[in-house]
Amino acid sequence: MQTQTLERMESEVRTYSRSFPVVFNKAVNARLSDEDGREYIDFLAGAGTLNYGHNNPHIKQALADYLMTDGIIHGLDFWTVAKREYLETLEEVILKPRGLDYKVHLPGPTGTNAVEAAIRLARVVKGRHNIVSFTNGFHGVTMGALAVTGNRKFREATGGVPTVGGAFMPFDGYMGDHTDTLDYFEKLLGDKSGGLDVPAAVIVETVQGEGGINVAGDKWLQRLEGICRDNDILLIIDDIQAGCGRTGKFFSFEHAGITPDIVTNSKSLSGFGLPFAHVLMRPELDKWKPGQYNGTFRGFNLAFVTAAAAMRKYWSDDTFERDVQRKGRIVEERFQKLARLISEKGHPASERGRGLMRGIDVGTGELADRITARAFENGLVIETSGQGGEVVKCLCPLTITDEDLIEGLDILERSVEEVLN
Amino acid sequence: MQTQTLERMESEVRTYSRSFPVVFNKAVNARLSDEDGREYIDFLAGAGTLNYGHNNPHIKQALADYLMTDGIIHGLDFWTVAKREYLETLEEVILKPRGLDYKVHLPGPTGTNAVEAAIRLARVVKGRHNIVSFTNGFHGVTMGALAVTGNRKFREATGGVPTVGGAFMPFDGYMGDHTDTLDYFEKLLGDKSGGLDVPAAVIVETVQGEGGINVAGDKWLQRLEGICRDNDILLIIDDIQAGCGRTGKFFSFEHAGITPDIVTNSKSLSGFGLPFAHVLMRPELDKWKPGQYNGTFRGFNLAFVTAAAAMRKYWSDDTFERDVQRKGRIVEERFQKLARLISEKGHPASERGRGLMRGIDVGTGELADRITARAFENGLVIETSGQGGEVVKCLCPLTITDEDLIEGLDILERSVEEVLN
Amino acid sequence: MQTQTLERMESEVRTYSRSFPVVFNKAVNARLSDEDGREYIDFLAGAGTLNYGHNNPHIKQALADYLMTDGIIHGLDFWTVAKREYLETLEEVILKPRGLDYKVHLPGPTGTNAVEAAIRLARVVKGRHNIVSFTNGFHGVTMGALAVTGNRKFREATGGVPTVGGAFMPFDGYMGDHTDTLDYFEKLLGDKSGGLDVPAAVIVETVQGEGGINVAGDKWLQRLEGICRDNDILLIIDDIQAGCGRTGKFFSFEHAGITPDIVTNSKSLSGFGLPFAHVLMRPELDKWKPGQYNGTFRGFNLAFVTAAAAMRKYWSDDTFERDVQRKGRIVEERFQKLARLISEKGHPASERGRGLMRGIDVGTGELADRITARAFENGLVIETSGQGGEVVKCLCPLTITDEDLIEGLDILERSVEEVLN
Amino acid sequence: MQTQTLERMESEVRTYSRSFPVVFNKAVNARLSDEDGREYIDFLAGAGTLNYGHNNPHIKQALADYLMTDGIIHGLDFWTVAKREYLETLEEVILKPRGLDYKVHLPGPTGTNAVEAAIRLARVVKGRHNIVSFTNGFHGVTMGALAVTGNRKFREATGGVPTVGGAFMPFDGYMGDHTDTLDYFEKLLGDKSGGLDVPAAVIVETVQGEGGINVAGDKWLQRLEGICRDNDILLIIDDIQAGCGRTGKFFSFEHAGITPDIVTNSKSLSGFGLPFAHVLMRPELDKWKPGQYNGTFRGFNLAFVTAAAAMRKYWSDDTFERDVQRKGRIVEERFQKLARLISEKGHPASERGRGLMRGIDVGTGELADRITARAFENGLVIETSGQGGEVVKCLCPLTITDEDLIEGLDILERSVEEVLN
Repeated sequence: MQTQTLERMESEVRTYSRSFPVVFNKAVNARLSDEDGREYIDFLAGAGTLNYGHNNPHIKQALADYLMTDGIIHGLDFWTVAKREYLETLEEVILKPRGLDYKVHLPGPTGTNAVEAAIRLARVVKGRHNIVSFTNGFHGVTMGALAVTGNRKFREATGGVPTVGGAFMPFDGYMGDHTDTLDYFEKLLGDKSGGLDVPAAVIVETVQGEGGINVAGDKWLQRLEGICRDNDILLIIDDIQAGCGRTGKFFSFEHAGITPDIVTNSKSLSGFGLPFAHVLMRPELDKWKPGQYNGTFRGFNLAFVTAAAAMRKYWSDDTFERDVQRKGRIVEERFQKLARLISEKGHPASERGRGLMRGIDVGTGELADRITARAFENGLVIETSGQGGEVVKCLCPLTITDEDLIEGLDILERSVEEVLN
Repeated sequence: MQTQTLERMESEVRTYSRSFPVVFNKAVNARLSDEDGREYIDFLAGAGTLNYGHNNPHIKQALADYLMTDGIIHGLDFWTVAKREYLETLEEVILKPRGLDYKVHLPGPTGTNAVEAAIRLARVVKGRHNIVSFTNGFHGVTMGALAVTGNRKFREATGGVPTVGGAFMPFDGYMGDHTDTLDYFEKLLGDKSGGLDVPAAVIVETVQGEGGINVAGDKWLQRLEGICRDNDILLIIDDIQAGCGRTGKFFSFEHAGITPDIVTNSKSLSGFGLPFAHVLMRPELDKWKPGQYNGTFRGFNLAFVTAAAAMRKYWSDDTFERDVQRKGRIVEERFQKLARLISEKGHPASERGRGLMRGIDVGTGELADRITARAFENGLVIETSGQGGEVVKCLCPLTITDEDLIEGLDILERSVEEVLN
Repeated sequence: MQTQTLERMESEVRTYSRSFPVVFNKAVNARLSDEDGREYIDFLAGAGTLNYGHNNPHIKQALADYLMTDGIIHGLDFWTVAKREYLETLEEVILKPRGLDYKVHLPGPTGTNAVEAAIRLARVVKGRHNIVSFTNGFHGVTMGALAVTGNRKFREATGGVPTVGGAFMPFDGYMGDHTDTLDYFEKLLGDKSGGLDVPAAVIVETVQGEGGINVAGDKWLQRLEGICRDNDILLIIDDIQAGCGRTGKFFSFEHAGITPDIVTNSKSLSGFGLPFAHVLMRPELDKWKPGQYNGTFRGFNLAFVTAAAAMRKYWSDDTFERDVQRKGRIVEERFQKLARLISEKGHPASERGRGLMRGIDVGTGELADRITARAFENGLVIETSGQGGEVVKCLCPLTITDEDLIEGLDILERSVEEVLN
Repeated sequence: MQTQTLERMESEVRTYSRSFPVVFNKAVNARLSDEDGREYIDFLAGAGTLNYGHNNPHIKQALADYLMTDGIIHGLDFWTVAKREYLETLEEVILKPRGLDYKVHLPGPTGTNAVEAAIRLARVVKGRHNIVSFTNGFHGVTMGALAVTGNRKFREATGGVPTVGGAFMPFDGYMGDHTDTLDYFEKLLGDKSGGLDVPAAVIVETVQGEGGINVAGDKWLQRLEGICRDNDILLIIDDIQAGCGRTGKFFSFEHAGITPDIVTNSKSLSGFGLPFAHVLMRPELDKWKPGQYNGTFRGFNLAFVTAAAAMRKYWSDDTFERDVQRKGRIVEERFQKLARLISEKGHPASERGRGLMRGIDVGTGELADRITARAFENGLVIETSGQGGEVVKCLCPLTITDEDLIEGLDILERSVEEVLN
């Protein structure tokens, strides 16, 4: 594999090509191939962007059909047939069956853009600057989103410019099993000199992906929703990684039965790996004035097409979500077994996650790196997350075949054994 | 045309669908069609995103071919064959022939992301927070980019959060014909109590697109480059709208013969309307550490494919750029004539621009709106820019046929006459 | 008493004249008189500014003597005899006997100025922007100090400008008796994605005055010092209200046996109510360059004179501090008794404090206000503090006579009874 | 003179003791003495703090009398007899005769505190964050005031924390004789994408003291007032250095006949070198709520006493201001002569200033330093200002005797000659 050009020309900022130093060239569903023809099972799937697999044939067909018609590809925020069909599909297939009533803001094709738009809207609506986010939350790296993102790696790479307008609270479980971290949040909200400016909004992931597959409990989320309601604070669910079926429901917050004021989606929203994002908001919050937020790629019609195709194909009934939940249980069991195995070898480990968003906390990033490196040698693309990279995570395509899923889990198990023996 | 769903579900933030309240469904090169089959000549072209026209067949073919092979669509920042070919093509077709030596950062698929990455890198490299931008400059609306973007519309929609780390200087010509605005900048740089924090970088568009097709003179840009060199300040050219051939050269700064330290490209970079952006930087500035800037869609392989195809097709020799310059002169002449016509009707107007990035300043946004509204009725999609929307601008595809170009100009002229009579 | 001019001309921002709507004209030690000749015992003492009483004769004599000599009154930061004597006295009487080695920064005559200078120095020394302060901490209201001050009253009166560079942690006891709040701080320090930027410094009051007479335990302070040392963070003790003997030691941190890197003093530092402040810092931290921090009144020589006189008079041996501790115990006992009394009346109340910095938490600001209002009618000036004003606090002069102290306490007790019956 | 303690214990931030490395011990009117008995004429006068001279006997008498009565020294913001008399005197002696109607905010005893309060009020009243100040303006160094202060020395000593909420415009004359700098300000105000956020207020010194004795012309100030009125922007005159008679009128803005919305005074306001400051505001702007701005020393009664004494003594009729103007003309003539002399020696120099706030721009800080160093050897305390310290400035007491004034000027002339020959 020729990598000189890549090494010479690409910025040192590159990361995944350090973990997986091969040149990939093909991919179908959960299988990646490199230029030398070697195949890998993909438990990363674009960090949750390829929930429907690589080159999903149904979605690709919709894309190809659209291309044949000379449909609009890029349309700023023009009205197009593709946009209309996207909105209709979103409403009919996703929102209405869930009893949700949202307007849609298409702020640009990336998650960070959606987050910037969501928190800006919250500030405008409430007339307050503060946005509360949570320890180990990740919401993007543009300066507005970075204010609510906890990672020092990014926060320390601003050239010294501090972020403005965010405050961090402890996520569910952060202070141990016996402390409900919302006690602290609620106490600060009621405290006139506690240092917490009354927030315009809370932004939270129900399962923190980059933060280490940390799952917020249903009761915790319900209480958080209640606190927001009681204190006139908007609740924003950042469902960029956990949404689009990853946890076994289209929206990850469905499990808790809560109704956010604002939702951000991206990653798997287009269904095909195309850059795409939207913000959903309760209609009465739509205080945007024309043109107050813009961006060139806020109308990427190919993504409208593929997103609508994905919704129709996978979310018209509950077949798909039940299948995801079933596979999630397979991973859960195998991960629990693996965690026990690792623990027995003297490295206390534990499983966690929801649906097909699962991880094993192996204690240290060093061990996790050794496992994932060995897994890659053995033909599995799998990554770590968590503040120290200590969580080996599974974000395989939701459409993965049972055979590939089992094979991937087998490879992981073998890799763990090789590393620990 | 069915627009109820669009009106009901899309946020009030929408803009272009207010100017052009139809549902578009097809487009080829410089021609758009709406759902009722009506055709429009497109002088907007995705605000400079569709330099090679809608559904460019050469580029579409490359995209279709790639789709057939089950190539990687989305790859985070994996090494892929498509990425390698993109980098090789960029180097061979664009950089080397121009004597440029840059490394490439792929920060995410939008211009604002590229600007955030560029200014952050400058801050890190220089250890200073201040970024100087210019009156009427537009560089994006995420909070970092907004600090260097002058538009009140966006700056006042942050919910009261002030931007941090930017300072504005007068653009070329801002203080009238007899003042070189760089005198002011240079004086402030040398003034220990003038209030200008020594900047890490200057960011500037050579032709301000959103700001009103304001052209920076070659001498002004050369002097600006000199001031930056003399004061250890990085020069960032934001070539997102003016780049990719729009001014008659691939990079708009080629006219002035300057060499920026950092360049941002997006919009027409993918050649097909796909979200895509990169940052070019002198190799010694690549102080990024692995993973210090990230984003899900920083490796959109379809865009690598189309961008490389566009470069090979249009930039392997100077045929295309000479053709753009030729068409630019056609627009220039017709716009000068139109400006005289409008002036004669009592509305002092003037033409300006470079290549196929041209505008007529008609004095007021109200008049400009009447002209563009009438043009739309007459079958031409054309927009305004400038601080008050007073500039009618032409951003037609660079690949527009002479027939469509002339027809578009004729429609515009007729529309002006109808409005003024 | 004529108050029309005062009411007409003074800004609505006025506060104490609302609680005590009389015109005071004379004061000696712990006794205030109003224009009508009515006397009050003063349990407020300039919110801790008059530790040595009103018009302390020893200190006044030093001031009068100095005035007779035509000594320098105002000297910018000139070297003067008075400044030298102040520094010598500070070194000989205060620092050396306590084994402390500090350099002195005279940043201006107010506490907020001292805090701004202290946190700025910490940022310069450590090259980090973040300063950690604590819930209910009060450090001043200029914008730099406000970033570490928790009160919404001030934070919401900035016209929407958010503060920059501060983060709040829970003070000792904030999360209940069974939680060591430093667990949370320490966890966040070690967490790479917890949202806590590594701080340059921690700033803390050992007893929070405005925050409600909240006392940090010795062990908590020792652990905090240890955390700072282990993490290369500077420890700033803001001893503006708790210092100068208020807690029974010159520095309030002496009780815990810790050695801060930086100390701020003001309020009673001049000993006579004159505006005065200094910052003490370990010599190796003195990274200031000439003139990097300035202010017109950074050399108020009358304050040098009175401050030195106060130190010589009261701190040359331990007689005074033992007397303060003795009186503190008197107040403690009476306050405990009062707290029991109030509790018995159905308002759960508790006593807390150290030395002569003591309070009774009566549960609500409403009840506290009724008590202090009645006390004022009965001849006692006493105020509340705490986030909701729920703490009735005693900050009487340390020099108060036993007779006045007892009388004041009697008045308070009588007032409580009147209010509750 | 013993200086070891001073050198060892005082922070490296010290400045004036570097220019004047002696220990001062006495001072009367315009004469300073050092510990060795050497006398100096004082052309610095506390950088404008001692307009009525050192140890002014009238004012001292009022202070001594007050001390004899055991009057309130420190009173937080209590109503006191001294405060009432101060307000009455201010109203009767200063405001009413000038047709001014202001309410008074006593925010704390320093200029920077007054500026923080003034700009915060402006933000609250207008609901906008931006405050426009001018090149070479100096308004204080606490973080809020620093946002409107241009000096890099201070701005670069924040440990990297950028200031928020200020924008700088060119002061009168900054762009040369042929450009009215307000053209630029006005153009930006009217420009929707010029990058200037609509300001809540403009803050300006009519004569910039620290900035180099730069005088704003009357017409420029009048136009500035008009621009503010037309654009709903508050006009704040920072009269901290130029006020209290320094320019020959009590308020420096009287010359231009303008009426600011808000005025800040400090420095010579107390008349005796005591820390003191107030903010004056049009009554309808007093939107402060009780306690929204506080500070321990906001009621320094000794300063009320001396300030009232100074006003009654010097401002009850126009004798004093005519005398200041007369002396100003003396300095003006001698400075013009000196400027010619210096120019003839090959160092282009010029005189400028108003009243007894005057300077000679000698072109470089290096030459200015040599002149002032030689002057000090010759018995004259005189300092420089300006962005590079290139302006030798006279801020002698307004009460200086003609003999001392002439002698001081003679020393300066001799020193210039010695330096240049």
